[in-house]
Amino acid sequence: MPQDNTILLAHGGGGELSGELIRREILTRFKSRELARLADAAVLDFPGGRLALTTDGYVVRPLFFRGGDIGRLCVSGTVNDLLVSGAKPLYLSLGIIVRDGFPLADFRRILDSIAATAAEAGVEVVTGDTKTVDHAAADGIFLTTAGVGVVPAASHLDYAAARDGDAVLVSGTMGDHGVAIMAEREQLGFSSPVESDVAPLNDVVAALLAAAPGARCLKDPTRGGLAAALNEIARACGRTMVIEEAHVPVREAVAGACDLLGLDVLAVANEGKIVAVVPAAEAEATLAALRGTPRGREAAIIGRVQDGPARVIGVSALGGQRIIEMPYGEELPRIC
Amino acid sequence: MPQDNTILLAHGGGGELSGELIRREILTRFKSRELARLADAAVLDFPGGRLALTTDGYVVRPLFFRGGDIGRLCVSGTVNDLLVSGAKPLYLSLGIIVRDGFPLADFRRILDSIAATAAEAGVEVVTGDTKTVDHAAADGIFLTTAGVGVVPAASHLDYAAARDGDAVLVSGTMGDHGVAIMAEREQLGFSSPVESDVAPLNDVVAALLAAAPGARCLKDPTRGGLAAALNEIARACGRTMVIEEAHVPVREAVAGACDLLGLDVLAVANEGKIVAVVPAAEAEATLAALRGTPRGREAAIIGRVQDGPARVIGVSALGGQRIIEMPYGEELPRIC
Repeated sequence: MPQDNTILLAHGGGGELSGELIRREILTRFKSRELARLADAAVLDFPGGRLALTTDGYVVRPLFFRGGDIGRLCVSGTVNDLLVSGAKPLYLSLGIIVRDGFPLADFRRILDSIAATAAEAGVEVVTGDTKTVDHAAADGIFLTTAGVGVVPAASHLDYAAARDGDAVLVSGTMGDHGVAIMAEREQLGFSSPVESDVAPLNDVVAALLAAAPGARCLKDPTRGGLAAALNEIARACGRTMVIEEAHVPVREAVAGACDLLGLDVLAVANEGKIVAVVPAAEAEATLAALRGTPRGREAAIIGRVQDGPARVIGVSALGGQRIIEMPYGEELPRIC
Repeated sequence: MPQDNTILLAHGGGGELSGELIRREILTRFKSRELARLADAAVLDFPGGRLALTTDGYVVRPLFFRGGDIGRLCVSGTVNDLLVSGAKPLYLSLGIIVRDGFPLADFRRILDSIAATAAEAGVEVVTGDTKTVDHAAADGIFLTTAGVGVVPAASHLDYAAARDGDAVLVSGTMGDHGVAIMAEREQLGFSSPVESDVAPLNDVVAALLAAAPGARCLKDPTRGGLAAALNEIARACGRTMVIEEAHVPVREAVAGACDLLGLDVLAVANEGKIVAVVPAAEAEATLAALRGTPRGREAAIIGRVQDGPARVIGVSALGGQRIIEMPYGEELPRIC
C-alpha cells in the first residue's frame, strides 16, 4: 500500500505531519471552535464558569525509565496541559488498555506511580476503565488520561495573545525527557546519567502566574520539543519568535547525547518544563519567581516576540541566524 | 509465569474478575469516594453545580460490523454512561492510538462515524490526541473517549437507591451487540442477520426520566450484559432482583446464536439499551414512554426488587428459579 494511504509513525510525532493529519482529517470533520484552537486543553462554557478538558494517550517504551515511568508521565502530562491553559486541575479519568499476560507486578508499580503523582499534583482519579487485549494485539500497556479543571474568570491565556516585544522564557533545561528515554533504549553509557524531568508543574505555574499577571500564554514543550511549541505559538499569534540559542539551558550530558545521535535538542521532548510568553516589563520578575521554585531553578529568558512573519528564528552566540523549523515527523517514536 | 501473576484477558470482561482487579488493585490505591461508587460516570462538585465525568477504551474487533463501527461505539458508550448517570452530555475528548501502516481510508471512515454519532447525540468533540505505534506494538486502532456532562440539581440517580417493590425495565432486546460482533468473527450464516444496537440513547433516557420522576437508577448493560448490570445494582442496594426470564425481550436470531455458541444471552453485551429501576407506581407510564421512542419500542418490564440478599434470581416461564450470577470473566474478548 503506498505510504500516503496509510498512517505513519511520524503522524504521531507532534510535528508538521501530526499537524497536517489533524488539520486535514480531524478539523475538517469536527466543527468545534475549541478543537480548532489546538490548545493544550479546551476551555469550555459550563454552568457557573469555565471548565478545561484535555486528554492524552501514553505509549512510551520502556515503561520504566530513569526519573519516571508511564504512570508518572500520564498524570504529569494531563495536569500540565490543564495548568498551561490557566486551569486549576481537579479531576482525572484513567483509561487502561493492557495485554493479556502483562506482569501484575508492573501493573501495580504503574498504579502506585499514578496514585503518588496524582497526590503530588492535588488531583483526584475519579473514574476509569480497563480493557484487555490478547498479547498479539498490543505489546504492553497503553494509558489514556483525561483531565478536568476549573478556569478562573480572570484567566485569559491564549497563544494568539503574544505581542511584539514580549519576552519568551523556559522554566528549565531542555531535552531531558527525550534523551533519558533514548538512553534507556540505546543503552548509552553516560558518565552522568540523564533523568527524565517528568513532573506535575503546579508550583512552577503558580509562581509564574503570580509574578506575571499579564502573561500571554504558557505551553509545555512535549512531543516536538521547544521547536514545536514555539512554532505553534508563532503561527497562532502571527509573529516572529527570536530565540538566543546560547540562552536556552541544556545539560551537558543532554547536549552530548544529542550531538552523538544527530538530534536537535530543541526538537527533543520535555515532560516537566514550560515555555512562557510574558510582557517585557514582567520578564525579570517572572524569571526570579520561576527560579524560586525547586523545579524552576534553571529557568531562563531565551528570547522575544517581534513583528514579522509567523516563524521562529534562532540566533547563535556569534550572531548567526537560522530558522528553527517545526519538526517534520517523529524523531523519537513512543517518547511519551 | 503463573497465571495469578499476570493480567488475563478475563480481567477486561466486565465480570467478577474485572471487579476483583478493580477492588484489589485500583480502589486500594486511589482514595476517591466517587471512584469507589464504580458508577458509569463520576458525579463531581464543580463551581456552579455538578459535573459528570466518564471514560472508556474501545478495542473492538472487527472495527466495522453490522450496525456500527468502533467510532459509533466510542461516542455512544461515553454518551450513554453520562445519560444513565442523570447528566446532560456536553463535551467529548478523543484519544487515538493507531499503528503505523493503518489504512487512511479506514481512519477516515472511523472519524466520519465519530462525527456523525456526536452530532446525533448533541455532543461536541472539543479536544483530542493521536499517538502512533509501530505495527508490532498494536494490531489496529484503539480509541479512548472521555465525556463531560452537567448534572441537574434535581437528579439523584444511584444504584443504591433501589427499594423493595420497585420495577425493573429494559429499553429493548438483549444481546444484539455481542451476537453481531460474534457473527462477524465466526462468519455465522444467519438467515436474518443480527445488527448491533449501538446508539446514543438521549431520546430513550429523556422519555424515561420524564415518565418516571422517581426513577432510582439507570444502567447501560454493556460488557457482562444484563447479568452484570443487575448484579451490580443488587450489590449496591443490598436487595434481591427477581427477573421473569420470559419477559426479557430477545430476538429470535440472537437466542438461536446464543444456543449455538453456548452463551447465556443475559451475559452478552448491549450498546444501545438501558436497564432501569423505577417505583412500581411509575412502571406502566415508564414502559409506555419508552415504547413511544424509536429505540424503545420493544421495552419491557422484566422484574422487581424485593427484600432479600444481594443477588439476582431468574424465574422461568414454568416458575423454576436460578441464580443469575455475575459473569466471571470474558465470554467474548474485544466486544467493545
